[in-house]
Order: sequence, then C-alpha cells, then structure tokens
Amino acid sequence: MSLNSIFQYFVPKDRKVFFPLFEQAAGNLVVMSNVLIEAVNTADLKKREELYNQIDKLENFGDELTHQIYQELSKNFITPFDREDITALTSAIDDVADYIQGSVNRMSLYKVEEISKSMISLSELILAGSLEIDKAIKELKDLKNVRAIADCCIRINNIENQADDIFDRAVADLFLYEKDAINLIKYKEVLAALETATDMCEDVANVLETILVKNA
Amino acid sequence: MSLNSIFQYFVPKDRKVFFPLFEQAAGNLVVMSNVLIEAVNTADLKKREELYNQIDKLENFGDELTHQIYQELSKNFITPFDREDITALTSAIDDVADYIQGSVNRMSLYKVEEISKSMISLSELILAGSLEIDKAIKELKDLKNVRAIADCCIRINNIENQADDIFDRAVADLFLYEKDAINLIKYKEVLAALETATDMCEDVANVLETILVKNA
Amino acid sequence: MSLNSIFQYFVPKDRKVFFPLFEQAAGNLVVMSNVLIEAVNTADLKKREELYNQIDKLENFGDELTHQIYQELSKNFITPFDREDITALTSAIDDVADYIQGSVNRMSLYKVEEISKSMISLSELILAGSLEIDKAIKELKDLKNVRAIADCCIRINNIENQADDIFDRAVADLFLYEKDAINLIKYKEVLAALETATDMCEDVANVLETILVKNA
Repeated sequence: MSLNSIFQYFVPKDRKVFFPLFEQAAGNLVVMSNVLIEAVNTADLKKREELYNQIDKLENFGDELTHQIYQELSKNFITPFDREDITALTSAIDDVADYIQGSVNRMSLYKVEEISKSMISLSELILAGSLEIDKAIKELKDLKNVRAIADCCIRINNIENQADDIFDRAVADLFLYEKDAINLIKYKEVLAALETATDMCEDVANVLETILVKNA
Repeated sequence: MSLNSIFQYFVPKDRKVFFPLFEQAAGNLVVMSNVLIEAVNTADLKKREELYNQIDKLENFGDELTHQIYQELSKNFITPFDREDITALTSAIDDVADYIQGSVNRMSLYKVEEISKSMISLSELILAGSLEIDKAIKELKDLKNVRAIADCCIRINNIENQADDIFDRAVADLFLYEKDAINLIKYKEVLAALETATDMCEDVANVLETILVKNA
Repeated sequence: MSLNSIFQYFVPKDRKVFFPLFEQAAGNLVVMSNVLIEAVNTADLKKREELYNQIDKLENFGDELTHQIYQELSKNFITPFDREDITALTSAIDDVADYIQGSVNRMSLYKVEEISKSMISLSELILAGSLEIDKAIKELKDLKNVRAIADCCIRINNIENQADDIFDRAVADLFLYEKDAINLIKYKEVLAALETATDMCEDVANVLETILVKNA
C-alpha cells in the first residue's frame, strides 16, 4: 500500500477535482465516436466533411481536458491514486481521441470517399469501446464496484479482438479483390487507424486494471 | 526498497503461485516458436495450415495463463516483486505470443505460400529469443544469479538487432526485385509481423531489467 | 515522496554520476540531427553516404552511453530520481537516436536519392526537438527551474504536432501525385521513420513530465 493509498482515507477532497475531468474526457470519447458513426454512414460528402470538422474540434476540447488534468496534478499533493496512473489514464484516453481524429483525417486527406462496410463496423466498435470506458470511469470514483470496472475491461478486450478480426479480414479482402495498389494502401491505412483506436481503448483498460490491482 | 521487497523476506509463499505460471507462459513461447519453425520449413501447404492452427491454440493457452496470473494478482496481497512489474512481464510475454500468432495469421490470410529465406531466419531468431526468455524466467525465481538474467537480456537485444538487419535487408530486396506492388506489400507485412515478435522479446528483456534494477 | 526522494537530500553525490551521462546522450542527439540536416541538404550522393555512416557511428556512441547509464544504475543505490524514470529517460533518448539512424538507413537501403521538401522539414523538426531535449536535460540537474523544463516539453509537443501535419500532407500528396505504387511505399516509409523520430522526442518529454510531477 503506497503512501498515496494511506493518505486517501483521510483526504478525499482531491476526488472532487480529478473525477469530473476524467468523466468529461471519457464523455468526449463517446461524443466523438457518435459523430464518427454519423460521418461514415452519410453519403452526403459535404455533410461528412462538416462532421470531420466537428471531430477535430472535439479532439481539441479533449486536449484541453488533458492539459487541465496535468495542471491539477501539479497543484495537488494528494491524488485519488498514484500520480503516474493519473497521467497514464489521461494520456490513454487522449490517445483514443487522437486515433479517432487521425482516422477521419486520413479519410479526408486521402480522399477516401467510398466508406467500406469494415470501416463502419470498426467505427461501431470504437463507439462500443468508448461507452465501456465511460462506464468504467464513472465507477472509478468510489472503488466499491471493482467487479463492474473489471467487467468493462474484459468487454473492451473483446471489442479489440473483434476489431482485429475485422481488420485482418478486410485487409485480406483488399489483397484478394483490390487490383489498384495505391487504392489498396489508402484503404489499408484508414482501416489501420480505426483499428488502432480500439487498441488505444484496450490501453485505457490496461491502465484501469493497473489501478484496480494497486488499489483494490 | 519497497514495502513489497521488505515483506518478501518473511512471506516467500507467494513465489509458489507466480513462478510456475511465468515458467509455463515462457515455455509456451518456446513451443509456439518451434511450431512456427516447422511451419515455415514445410512445403506441404495442408500440413502448414495445420501447424498454423496449432499456433492459434497455443496462443489461446497463453491467454489463459495471462488471465490466471491476473487472477492470482487480485487474490494475493504479497507478490514476489512489484505488482506493476508482474503485469508488465505477463503482458510482454503475451505480446510475443500475439505477434507469433499474428505473423502466421497474415501468412494464412494473405495467402503467402512462398516462404522466403528471410522469413525463416526471422522465425529462427524468434525461437532464439523465446529460449532466452525461458532461461531468464527460470533464473528469476531466486534472484541469486542476476548475472545470468542480465546476460539473457543482452543476448535478446542482440537477437533483436539481427532481426532488424534481416528485416531491413529483406525489404530493401523487395524494393529492388519485387515488381508487383501488391505482392511487395504482402511480404513486407509478414516480415514486419515477424520482426515485431523479436521487438516484443526485447520488451520482455526490458521488463526483466527493470525487475533486476529494483530488486538486485 | 519516495524513499529515494528523501535520501536525495542527504546524498547529492550520485548526481555527479548520472547527469553528465544524460547530457552527453542529449548532446549526441543534437549532433546526430545536425548531421542529418547536412545529409538531406547535400546533392552529392557520395558525401551523403558518408554522412549516413557518421550517423551510424553516433548511434553506436549513444548505445554505449545507454549501456554506461544502466551500469551506473546497477552500482548506485541512491539515484537522483526513481530508478524506473532513469531507465525510461535513457531508453526514450536512445529511441530518438534509433529513429534518426533508422530514417537514414531506409533512405540508403531503399536508394531514395531524391530528398523531398517534407523530408527536409521533418529533419529540421527533429533537430528542433533534439535542441529542446538538450535544454531540458541541462535544467534537470537542479530542479529549480521546473518552468523551463515544462516549457521545453510544451515546445516538443508542438514540434511533434507540426511533424504530424507535414507527414499527413506529404502522404496525401503522394496519393495524389505519385503514380508508381512502389515509389509511393518507399517515400512513405522514409517519411514515417522521420516522423516517428519526433514521436520519440515527445516520449522523452513525457518521461520528463513524469519526473517533474514526482519530484516537483
């Protein structure tokens, strides 16, 4: 049991600072994923570009939250759990946002106009992962329901496995059916970015598991 | 010296729980690598597919071991070394297994039937790395022979450097001689997955070095 | 506050061992980046190859420094900050050197003779990142000027963002204008290696921020 864990029984005040920020950051992932879903499902290219811009703005908002958490960390001696786990959790959530934004950025830059079924499925898995992260973060406040957080982590791992399978199958199909090598590379890059967003969800789950292991 | 390190002088019982699991996980890497070697050396495509399936099953077995270690971690207050190093070691070993499985998965999905010499060399380096991991893990039990573990880590780093060179040379050759861009991408992806498996061996070595630094 | 942090008030002697090595490693990055800049700006292919060789030698020198730091770590019980942060900082600096060398290695192996403007811009950002790392490391010795280190980290993050943009734009241009798929892959790989070197600068900044958070 670290000094931190001992202190936290006496000074629960700090919780008021960090948890609302974590919840906002996780909530932001859910919003971003929903906009992503909308973007990959619309055939209206102008509308889609607007949704991409919205994702950019949400990603900036996420960056601000990250920055705020680091600032609180520099001001607060007592933290709800180990300082390095706070930074790890914050940067893992930020990474999910980065890859969501990175995915649509590639779609836009590479002028990928035909969204494939696998891209839609991967986007749905990103939303599913974000919802689990959101749920787990809400439970983190009082570590009473450790089981619920652990279950979210298991589901996130499952989601990542499904994303792996979809990605593998989609790339195998590209190798079978896409005869234009440059198109193949483009599609593969977009699929990889989407799949990596689910990897980043798994990283969030790993940090959550570390926090559980240390504090349970 | 952490609380953990102090406690461990009094309660060595926990060692009986974790070390056999680590040893099984490392042993599983050796078995997987041996099946990989067999697979890349056979010309019988049906036989090769069977060996790929065997690797899938071994990877599942590895996942179960990982899961068991995490469960023990949640039950045991006293651990042989810092909890975060146990999770880091466990997940690093799991990553090696993932990339071995990922490599053959790509070979199978992308229908790469002609196995190149570089793929065989990389597979041999994965086996060499797994054998060093296995040796190091066996020494970890009693930290008496720190030198032996450190030597394994040095050799794993060497193996990874060799894998880098083989990968670089193989990709350079693809750029020189492979005129079909789609084939080039396929081969490059398989080579990259194999090379990443040796990177993951190096990650195991890094965790082992961290454990030595903390506990020596 | 860790045992380490308490001890360090009494035994500042250890600082004499680690900081000169960190400073040399950071200085080595600056030298490497300058040679890189020279290499990508010369049209003389023979001269360029010589500069590549120089980078290889500097990377080897960096490896020796890394090794020396690990050796000091095994000999010194008292360290200026947490042992794991020393290894993290050392390996993050080493990663920057690895990717600088990896970039020129690809240029050389893939026979990329026409250096594009984006490659030059990325090289300049690598130099800018290395200079900030160098500055931050010099401030690390006495943690008096925490603000200065934090500012370096912010600038490194900015540099990485700029590198991202240049990379994205360059790859988008390749998809638009490069009709030879194999050339496209080659250029993309070199750009990716250069961009990853700036990611590794950001990793150094992340470790520095962790050290600040723990010791400030």
